[in-house]
Amino acid sequence: MPTYKAPLDDIHFVLNEVLKVEQLSAHYPDFDTATMSAILEEAGKLCEEVLQPINRSGDEEGCVWNNGEVTTPKGFKEAYKIFCEAGWPALGCDPAYGGQGLPHAVNTVFEEMICSANLSFGMYPGLSRGAVDALMQWGSDDLKNSYLPKLVSGEWSGTMCLTEPHCGTDLGLIRTKAIPNTDGSYKISGTKIFISAGEHDLTSNIIHLVLAKLPDAPPGTRGISLFIVPKFIPKADNTPGERNKAVCGSIEHKMGIKASSTCVMNFDEATGWLVGEPHKGMRAMFTMMNAARLAVGIQGLGLAEVSYQNAVAYANERLQGRALTGTKFPDKPADPILVHPDVRKNLLTMRANIEGCRALAYWMAMQIDVFHKHPDAKERQKADDFVALLTPIAKAYFTDMAYEGCTLGQQVLGGHGYIREWGMEQFVRDARIAQIYEGTNGIQALDLVGRKLGQDMGRLLRSFFHPMGAELEAESANPALIEFVAPLTKAFAKLQQTTALIAQKGLKNPDEAGAASTDYLRLFALVALGWMWLKMAKVAAEKLPTAGGQAPFYDAKLKTARFFFLRLLPATDTLAKTIGTGASPLMDMAHEQFALPPLGVGRG
Amino acid sequence: MPTYKAPLDDIHFVLNEVLKVEQLSAHYPDFDTATMSAILEEAGKLCEEVLQPINRSGDEEGCVWNNGEVTTPKGFKEAYKIFCEAGWPALGCDPAYGGQGLPHAVNTVFEEMICSANLSFGMYPGLSRGAVDALMQWGSDDLKNSYLPKLVSGEWSGTMCLTEPHCGTDLGLIRTKAIPNTDGSYKISGTKIFISAGEHDLTSNIIHLVLAKLPDAPPGTRGISLFIVPKFIPKADNTPGERNKAVCGSIEHKMGIKASSTCVMNFDEATGWLVGEPHKGMRAMFTMMNAARLAVGIQGLGLAEVSYQNAVAYANERLQGRALTGTKFPDKPADPILVHPDVRKNLLTMRANIEGCRALAYWMAMQIDVFHKHPDAKERQKADDFVALLTPIAKAYFTDMAYEGCTLGQQVLGGHGYIREWGMEQFVRDARIAQIYEGTNGIQALDLVGRKLGQDMGRLLRSFFHPMGAELEAESANPALIEFVAPLTKAFAKLQQTTALIAQKGLKNPDEAGAASTDYLRLFALVALGWMWLKMAKVAAEKLPTAGGQAPFYDAKLKTARFFFLRLLPATDTLAKTIGTGASPLMDMAHEQFALPPLGVGRG
Repeated sequence: MPTYKAPLDDIHFVLNEVLKVEQLSAHYPDFDTATMSAILEEAGKLCEEVLQPINRSGDEEGCVWNNGEVTTPKGFKEAYKIFCEAGWPALGCDPAYGGQGLPHAVNTVFEEMICSANLSFGMYPGLSRGAVDALMQWGSDDLKNSYLPKLVSGEWSGTMCLTEPHCGTDLGLIRTKAIPNTDGSYKISGTKIFISAGEHDLTSNIIHLVLAKLPDAPPGTRGISLFIVPKFIPKADNTPGERNKAVCGSIEHKMGIKASSTCVMNFDEATGWLVGEPHKGMRAMFTMMNAARLAVGIQGLGLAEVSYQNAVAYANERLQGRALTGTKFPDKPADPILVHPDVRKNLLTMRANIEGCRALAYWMAMQIDVFHKHPDAKERQKADDFVALLTPIAKAYFTDMAYEGCTLGQQVLGGHGYIREWGMEQFVRDARIAQIYEGTNGIQALDLVGRKLGQDMGRLLRSFFHPMGAELEAESANPALIEFVAPLTKAFAKLQQTTALIAQKGLKNPDEAGAASTDYLRLFALVALGWMWLKMAKVAAEKLPTAGGQAPFYDAKLKTARFFFLRLLPATDTLAKTIGTGASPLMDMAHEQFALPPLGVGRG
Repeated sequence: MPTYKAPLDDIHFVLNEVLKVEQLSAHYPDFDTATMSAILEEAGKLCEEVLQPINRSGDEEGCVWNNGEVTTPKGFKEAYKIFCEAGWPALGCDPAYGGQGLPHAVNTVFEEMICSANLSFGMYPGLSRGAVDALMQWGSDDLKNSYLPKLVSGEWSGTMCLTEPHCGTDLGLIRTKAIPNTDGSYKISGTKIFISAGEHDLTSNIIHLVLAKLPDAPPGTRGISLFIVPKFIPKADNTPGERNKAVCGSIEHKMGIKASSTCVMNFDEATGWLVGEPHKGMRAMFTMMNAARLAVGIQGLGLAEVSYQNAVAYANERLQGRALTGTKFPDKPADPILVHPDVRKNLLTMRANIEGCRALAYWMAMQIDVFHKHPDAKERQKADDFVALLTPIAKAYFTDMAYEGCTLGQQVLGGHGYIREWGMEQFVRDARIAQIYEGTNGIQALDLVGRKLGQDMGRLLRSFFHPMGAELEAESANPALIEFVAPLTKAFAKLQQTTALIAQKGLKNPDEAGAASTDYLRLFALVALGWMWLKMAKVAAEKLPTAGGQAPFYDAKLKTARFFFLRLLPATDTLAKTIGTGASPLMDMAHEQFALPPLGVGRG
């Protein structure tokens, strides 16, 4: 059975020593780092002691559908009750509706821990959080007052109903209809699939946010509206009333996240209310989706972390063979497999990615706080630009590194990694979905090259290129950092060159941008992680000489930085090269040649 | 539900047009390509119509253990009966024991098809085949006469019992004991784990090949002997007699290959007989393992192929959005997702790997036939050197590309790829084991750099470097191939340089070789695939101008070759660079620094 310990030391290092999270107190008057530490310690305990112990059993048991009702695995109801009673759903929510009003950055750390401990569990409050954000931004005061207090307390939960059997990425094709009633409500009819938390037994009500088309809708995505459709229609006193015709027809059997219910939802003239303006549903949905995309990236981070912890433990305990350079532990029947360079390479690949992604994730979360709270509109804009640019990168790269990382963690355990009881294979199966949902990673790459690069004449790009360029310049003469600054400066130049190349070629032929997209996203991500590693290495190098008993931490940080720059960053060479080969290697093949053309042998 | 069609056209192209398989008739007098085609067509039908239809249900149902007995999923017994009645287990076996005596190359193609159709099923006859090979080479005439006819017919099945709870890679640690009886037999006692096909209901007897230590065994791997331990001890008439004390204690619950039983086998003074000489069991086991390692590579190839076929079908059928360059199918509500560059990149990555690996696999299989049958000892030696060198590369690279490829195939299906009923996620889960068993891919890389590179003063390397260098030289002025020869010549030079570097640094410090090993294996594999692609491109370029109705096949082959050289081969740049960074980025981290050192915050 795997274990988990919240990595509070590294979290502390990133938030306090690298990112100086205390600066957020300028925007959150009640915020201070001592309180934050206390909260995160409690959050860690909850994840370690309540959520993690039901992760494996939840996977084995899964959710069960019976005549429209869904039962979550044993212990989930009790854990959810503890979760709500301690006020955890309210952590980052608005105090006006019962929230604790803490920075998004703190909530992001908590999300990482939840996903390490029990991703399936985390999806229930995670979806609610998305619903809260959408209602906060687009809901009328009536809707807010009816729904937000119950969603913030966790008494009710939320969903996002987008996908239909024939459409996922292309929401312009949706067929779910909304017909106005005379009282201002609507009759919603249609079938939605892949609805996470669409039905379950954790809460007394479930609030669906549903994309549908009004009778006068223009075609395509410009004709989509957003509706709120509760499972039970709230009574005047905001307690659940009449059962609405929003029913779970079945649940999916999936590769992983088995304790999270994935529902087919049938809306059969269900009563709903418009959220925001008619035909402007996509805009509202994007509020949820952008937050959700970063949250999915965090899921990857959390899974990679827990897989790393357990892989290291195994590599220390498993005695097998001897070190290539001769026996290291003569008192043992064999050396622990951690002596082997390739086992170390697997572990360090995970760790350099995890710690780099963690720094970037927390920095993005802090920028979201700046966007929400900074008094200066220019600062808000810069923060928003940075987050918008990095969101597809974080979603795709964090989840790719999580799948690859959990696979490496599993590999360290050899055959035991393939056996269910060891738990390492569950991390792989759970991580896999994060590359797919909230827009596949291919769609993230298209968002990056097709939307974010060119947006506002490249303004989003400048929110990244300018400060990174300035920092490289500032550190260029720092002898303690030259081993990092030198390769990063080269990789940064490659990123700038390929950006210009894609912008130029993509204007003439969008397939050129599409053909470069996933390699470009990965190149961008590696440079962004390199920047984070430069920041972390700088702090570590400064602190190490006087660190005393904490020296091993800073020393390990510098060694991991070295690994990143020597072993992971060089992938940028190949990526720049393959991007340069353009679209024709992909586009020249005729459609019918993808299924192998016949050669006139065999059955033809 | 996924489908499968045996890729007979590509098989025909590789065997007949590229590798000139007809030359094997010099060694196999009864072999001709017309017979081979007929056999492969029948084999394809069996895989498509008998084995593939029970692959999904086998995964859902799994094997069931009950009081020492194991039941395979519905349909497996019937399929195995059909399989044996048609004589398929005997395909490549010696006619002296009822085999059909066909070349190994033909059997390899059949193995690929079986693994595409139903990997779990294929493991039962696959393990038997390993037992046949070991007995053929090391068994006494008595043992051969007792066991081989039944194993060749499929009436009985075989296993390999190596791993114990505390040892897998390091077999020197095994504790299973063999005590001589007075009649020449032995009492075998110990526990073996991860025993594929250790117990099941397909055959009337199961023949275990067990590694154990004699009382006078020297320590380590030099003290291991091989024993044959039948489930039922054959009577004088070679029918199953007394039940032996070799009992299945439980089966593992695994990530995949769920219809293949993975058993804990308890030997409790079970009766066994020595195979080969005392203390020479590792040598005999390597006979089975080397064949098994190539067979595991073929498993990867088969899984990638079936995933590719289904991903292409989906990409052609799924209508979603429009091409980036404007509508391609105006009569449809949306374009098929195959119009998108990144979907094409995923598919072409799979295909360029699959077709390259197929060519290399079949070539290796033909070299095995040369090794077994060629009258000239020098030719046999060259063939054996080539196979020994390429075996770890094929095992590790084919299975890595299969896992990565099946993941890409699943990605093409988006959310549907994550749902069990679509079957794409099963290919990923099934492919995952192939990177682990028969020596993890990290162990394969160590075998390559630690054993194969230096063996016999680099003689194994010459079996690859000399003919490849000569072919590059011969084609260097061929204008039709310059686009392939030029990048391959550079990559080949990188391979030669890194080989020299590793040999030189590894002599002084074995950790240097270990630190380079997995990157070096991948670099080697990409160059080897490049060579295969050069051979295939040459044939395609020659045939294309006069190919008539077959032109689309050769044209597609050239386009896939281009994709390989432009998009996949450039990874060699980064690999050469990371290999050059040496061992210190991996070895400098202290053992205790792998678990994050404390920073004195939190609960510390």
